[in-house]
Amino acid sequence: MAATAAEPTPIDGPLTQEAIARIDAYWRACNYLAAGMIYLQDNPLLREPLRSEHVKRRLLGHWGASPGLAFMYTHLNRLIVEQGQEAIFLAGPGHGAPGVLAPVYLEGTYSEIYPDKSEDAEGLRRFFKQFSFPGGIGSHCTPETPGSIHEGGELGYSISHAFGAAFDNPDLLVAVAVGDGEAETGPLATSWHSSKFLNPVRDGAVLPILHLNGYKINNPTLLARIPGEELASLFRGYGWTPYFVEGDDPLVMHQQMAATLDRCLAEIRAIQGEARRSGQATRAHWPMIVLRTPKGWTGPESVDGHKVEGFWRAHQVPLAGIHENPNHLKQLEAWLRGYRPDELFDETGRLIPELKAIAPQGARRMSANPHANGGLVRRALRMPDFRSYAQEVAKPAQGSAMNTKPLGALLRDVMAKNMDKFRVFGPDENTSNKLDAIYEVSKKLWLADYRPEDADGGELAPDGRVMEMLSEHTLEGWFEGYVLTGRHGFFATYEAFVHIIDSMYNQHAKWLAISEEIPWRAPISSINLLITSTVWRQDHNGFTHQDPGFLDVVVNKNPEVTRIYLPPDVNCLLSTADHCLRSHDDINVIVCDKQSHLQYLDMDAAIKHCTKGLGIWDWASNDQGAEPDVVMVGCGDIPTKEALAATALLREHFPDLKIRFINVVDLFRMTPDSEHPHGLSARDFDSLFTKDKPIIFNFHGYPWLIHRLAYRRTNHAHLHVRGYKERGNINTPMELAINNEIDRFSLAIDVINRVPRLQVAGAHVKERLRDMQLECRQHAYKYGIDKPEVADWTWPY
Amino acid sequence: MAATAAEPTPIDGPLTQEAIARIDAYWRACNYLAAGMIYLQDNPLLREPLRSEHVKRRLLGHWGASPGLAFMYTHLNRLIVEQGQEAIFLAGPGHGAPGVLAPVYLEGTYSEIYPDKSEDAEGLRRFFKQFSFPGGIGSHCTPETPGSIHEGGELGYSISHAFGAAFDNPDLLVAVAVGDGEAETGPLATSWHSSKFLNPVRDGAVLPILHLNGYKINNPTLLARIPGEELASLFRGYGWTPYFVEGDDPLVMHQQMAATLDRCLAEIRAIQGEARRSGQATRAHWPMIVLRTPKGWTGPESVDGHKVEGFWRAHQVPLAGIHENPNHLKQLEAWLRGYRPDELFDETGRLIPELKAIAPQGARRMSANPHANGGLVRRALRMPDFRSYAQEVAKPAQGSAMNTKPLGALLRDVMAKNMDKFRVFGPDENTSNKLDAIYEVSKKLWLADYRPEDADGGELAPDGRVMEMLSEHTLEGWFEGYVLTGRHGFFATYEAFVHIIDSMYNQHAKWLAISEEIPWRAPISSINLLITSTVWRQDHNGFTHQDPGFLDVVVNKNPEVTRIYLPPDVNCLLSTADHCLRSHDDINVIVCDKQSHLQYLDMDAAIKHCTKGLGIWDWASNDQGAEPDVVMVGCGDIPTKEALAATALLREHFPDLKIRFINVVDLFRMTPDSEHPHGLSARDFDSLFTKDKPIIFNFHGYPWLIHRLAYRRTNHAHLHVRGYKERGNINTPMELAINNEIDRFSLAIDVINRVPRLQVAGAHVKERLRDMQLECRQHAYKYGIDKPEVADWTWPY
Repeated sequence: MAATAAEPTPIDGPLTQEAIARIDAYWRACNYLAAGMIYLQDNPLLREPLRSEHVKRRLLGHWGASPGLAFMYTHLNRLIVEQGQEAIFLAGPGHGAPGVLAPVYLEGTYSEIYPDKSEDAEGLRRFFKQFSFPGGIGSHCTPETPGSIHEGGELGYSISHAFGAAFDNPDLLVAVAVGDGEAETGPLATSWHSSKFLNPVRDGAVLPILHLNGYKINNPTLLARIPGEELASLFRGYGWTPYFVEGDDPLVMHQQMAATLDRCLAEIRAIQGEARRSGQATRAHWPMIVLRTPKGWTGPESVDGHKVEGFWRAHQVPLAGIHENPNHLKQLEAWLRGYRPDELFDETGRLIPELKAIAPQGARRMSANPHANGGLVRRALRMPDFRSYAQEVAKPAQGSAMNTKPLGALLRDVMAKNMDKFRVFGPDENTSNKLDAIYEVSKKLWLADYRPEDADGGELAPDGRVMEMLSEHTLEGWFEGYVLTGRHGFFATYEAFVHIIDSMYNQHAKWLAISEEIPWRAPISSINLLITSTVWRQDHNGFTHQDPGFLDVVVNKNPEVTRIYLPPDVNCLLSTADHCLRSHDDINVIVCDKQSHLQYLDMDAAIKHCTKGLGIWDWASNDQGAEPDVVMVGCGDIPTKEALAATALLREHFPDLKIRFINVVDLFRMTPDSEHPHGLSARDFDSLFTKDKPIIFNFHGYPWLIHRLAYRRTNHAHLHVRGYKERGNINTPMELAINNEIDRFSLAIDVINRVPRLQVAGAHVKERLRDMQLECRQHAYKYGIDKPEVADWTWPY
Repeated sequence: MAATAAEPTPIDGPLTQEAIARIDAYWRACNYLAAGMIYLQDNPLLREPLRSEHVKRRLLGHWGASPGLAFMYTHLNRLIVEQGQEAIFLAGPGHGAPGVLAPVYLEGTYSEIYPDKSEDAEGLRRFFKQFSFPGGIGSHCTPETPGSIHEGGELGYSISHAFGAAFDNPDLLVAVAVGDGEAETGPLATSWHSSKFLNPVRDGAVLPILHLNGYKINNPTLLARIPGEELASLFRGYGWTPYFVEGDDPLVMHQQMAATLDRCLAEIRAIQGEARRSGQATRAHWPMIVLRTPKGWTGPESVDGHKVEGFWRAHQVPLAGIHENPNHLKQLEAWLRGYRPDELFDETGRLIPELKAIAPQGARRMSANPHANGGLVRRALRMPDFRSYAQEVAKPAQGSAMNTKPLGALLRDVMAKNMDKFRVFGPDENTSNKLDAIYEVSKKLWLADYRPEDADGGELAPDGRVMEMLSEHTLEGWFEGYVLTGRHGFFATYEAFVHIIDSMYNQHAKWLAISEEIPWRAPISSINLLITSTVWRQDHNGFTHQDPGFLDVVVNKNPEVTRIYLPPDVNCLLSTADHCLRSHDDINVIVCDKQSHLQYLDMDAAIKHCTKGLGIWDWASNDQGAEPDVVMVGCGDIPTKEALAATALLREHFPDLKIRFINVVDLFRMTPDSEHPHGLSARDFDSLFTKDKPIIFNFHGYPWLIHRLAYRRTNHAHLHVRGYKERGNINTPMELAINNEIDRFSLAIDVINRVPRLQVAGAHVKERLRDMQLECRQHAYKYGIDKPEVADWTWPY
């Protein structure tokens, strides 16, 4: 029975009996196909009696959610056709892919893209067989699925993806099925609040359909076993207007669903119409649907005396013993024939014209909507000249600046030039991260209550394009949905807490890696992640805020889609950011702290340096024209400064020592070119890092990551890496550096220990360096800050 | 005004005017201390006029949440004393540590534990100075904080930690402050559902206090700017009964808070009393409090003309220019003196006796409650003899078994012997993970509606001790809270999705590493994580379910608390699990797939092997008494099988080739003993792996992890690692192995390529091996399954 927030939906419309019959027939065709792709490798239309050899040997796939997904899809089709609505569909329970693949095939898109899966018996046979079959397609809504921007392999991100798709797409309706299993995850639970960020003037609409299937793999779901009023209260509390469609009689349910969808669309259009007429965007209580249907609806009621339909047993393959148990085979045949395929498909095996006619046509098909192949509608960003934000650097390593501040100005002007297709994301930290220049052109999106005090420092606006919510999951989900539908963005977040989205990074990287191999998927913009507030500047946050290990997660994914940059100063950061914003199909991770740091390169030098990705800094080296005694490397802002300071200390004590100084911006340059497209050739690497001289590599992150990248290098045996090794607490910057041995003194000692001719001569110098370390510590303990001459050190040559 | 779900709280009780005055004085003392620790390094009681040199040079800490936290703490103290209630307190907004440290100091615990922070002026000065100061304590509720089991450095886990603490502690009230910033995170948003898992008969109670401070760092919070009715609806929808305490007049608010706390405790006791009288546990609608107070309450109203109290500017240090701006210094002094410290502390600097008297005493103090130093109340698990679950293995590598199935039996009997202190956690997958034997003694906890069908396969019970919810975040949070309060548990989850809790792992590892250095923190049980449904068996889930990279996250943390085991078969898994369940202060990660796998070692051999952590399998080696030509290593179930099969192939083709076969269970054995307590000495490593022979290492995870662990080993130059390298889709097991080159054929080819004398002789063998690979692929493509003779391979010698 359809309950609504206010009054019951009429159940004598909008469908005629004929319309109900047609929709039901279409849905039966979907369900037949969904079951068919799980089971059949032959006899696809059951034109002969079903025999064991027609059935795949290994039965894989998820039946449970499929009929419900097909039910939604079919009814959304009616909405698209009758109301002229543009829509796309996201299946949160992506495991129910059969329920999506079926209507995608029926509306012809599948055959257009994959001609061998033609709309006839042979094409259908191939379509069935490839499903969950080696060399075929997965049992989720993988990138191979036309119309999919959401695989649903890992659960939790359907709503945030849907909102990302709806932002700045005013005419689009994004329908999103949310599984009641998925609804238990944290990321999904908070993503319901996304509706507080949907501007009815400029954005499209999101219509969530919470699918109360009732069960997960083996368990009831939490939301399916609480009273309806409690569930309604939950969604009203989240800010939605929930409508309930509940039942198991298809003919009744068709009417309910049609009426409820009509009502939801009318409400959406009323909200949008009012906002667009007035130009006033306010927070709306958007409609949503709670669809309660039996799990495995229309499938076997029971198998071997155990309840299946409407129970968790329907989750995957309801009848699993086809090849061993003749009764299972018989039951399967009866089940499949129950959909009456003979009435649904013509002689050739194609859906009959009366049913074909009720699906949308062309680009209005959800499976062919260009928004769901976002590269098709992607327009390049209009970019300002990043050189105009340059930091003046008359001489390297003399002055300081906040590295992210000019980036804020660049982002501001990117925003100003792309107010329809660019957004900036951050968990409440854009000001803290020194990117606040952006608020000059676009505020933080805020649609809820305003207070007088917001006028002084609130930076809030209903048409803001800076998205701030304290949920990295939601932000990343929005960002992914936004680029998957052809737009651009930038996400700045705290280094330690980017681990919160490790798994989302993994899944998006996998999506991109597969998508790059699919010719019909057009390139989409990269995910640009600025990792800031880094490990080396956590004076009062301490240990919990010290974790540079996201990079270790990043490097595990496909080299075709992974990029890591550690620009050491303003100009390198600007050059890197410009490159990343123009790129596509990558995940760009930029590590750069927000505090004040030493500046090294003027803009021309920075561009050259970043283009090479790494290089010798001649001004800091004294090995000109000769093989050096030691190679000193800095990678990251603070490590570069300390490595330089170590170089200066060594030069002071050992004027004859030939030191080559290298800075690394593009981390993957460290890996062989056979392993990563940015990898440096063996020849170039050997020429830069020598074949046998000690290399002291001062790294921003965990030191072993450099070994992981460079273990095949000729000179790996002499590569000595310093980095963060979990030694932190409430420390001044220098104290933290000393604890982890990335400080100038430790590095100088490392060099003395590794250059044979210094080992005797250097003994007293080492002692002096250790004293200097101790003085630094003592100063920190006494005054709570670092010695100014150490903190404000500049390059003395 | 206090609003309730049903009727307004009376505001003329329960406090007398005298009681209000006392509570307010106590709270003023807290607030004075909270501000003092942010600012003062001297003149702690303002006995002389405040001068710049009394103020720390670097001002760090979070004022904003502190007064509210101290307000809660003070009122909970009253509840403890007046109602004889045992309670502990978790501060979700751990950044507000000053608001917790202050009452902890005032009730004497701090000085008992840290005698130099005595209850006098000099102790107070030290207490102030150490806060957020090098060598001192952090600005969160770090492990150094007496009474804390929740640091709050990363946000999102306060509620799940609180429930973990309450489980099986029937007399305990766990009060938990939830910040409105934290409330926006995904993990927190779904953790409100935890109340559906609280059994009023056997568990304690959780009292959440949602602190509507109104602001995050720079933004309003979502929940603070929606209508009260909407917020109430949200929490009713989550299943709670919300009570509102809102305002800014302390004297009114004290009465409101006291009345509301009394009411909540009465409701809690009524729910528990009814359930315990009847013995019937049902789902309850527990009370919770929404506390709306100004951010930075009682702090500076405005600074330099900008609003501070009640705005985001109060988040950290409200007056930041003390050393530069004499007005700020003056304003600070006025603010601090506003708390009237002279009235609160006696001559010596100790809190006056009238106020001392209103705090709880001894172990009733929340800061001294033994549950919050869980090792104190921890009782060892009563363990069955794991050897009695042994898999019979007459000869190695002949038969197969499901590795996790006997583990289920072991866990069942651990459960049966420890029904008051052991729980098993899993996201809806314990049956899928073959651990379902456990349901014989304890079902899945389920307190909501039951349906008739649940009787056949539901495995649900209100007194179940298996915790299943589709939220890895919530499960891990419960588990952490449970062990932090002295109990034991086991968590089984899918390999790819354990990345969801990467960040929780990081934070718990950091907590443990610091705790181990704190003498008064007693050892707590380890977190035991079984990573199953692994990368090599994802036939239909495909690419999204393939990610063995959690191990790369694990190895970055402190070696004192990190352990990784890859038992290859049933008996090794049992031996490993027994060891892990008995251990303390570690995070044990056990990687073992749930499917049927070849069995290698009988129980005696398994125990010996697991005790060593790695070792030569003589029965699979033919280098007896001699230096081998090659060392073949298997680490993980499938990689071990493939490495063995490669060994057999090589022996067939090259009978003279001397192969040493090593299996690695304890991954950290690969690292030097200077780096990890489980590291193998250089001598032992060289003796096992040789100094110069090729090593072919077949690894379960990403191959470079082995290089990261072993790059310092003598023979690293000849270490050749195979593992997962992101080449997956819908593949049969053998096809997936081939794609990633961990299959027997690729390994045999690797050996041929690396043993000089095989390079010519082996050319035709390599060709044959490549043909065999191709046949495997073709078989998979044709039949959808692997060739039986390959899949069911057994060791032929």
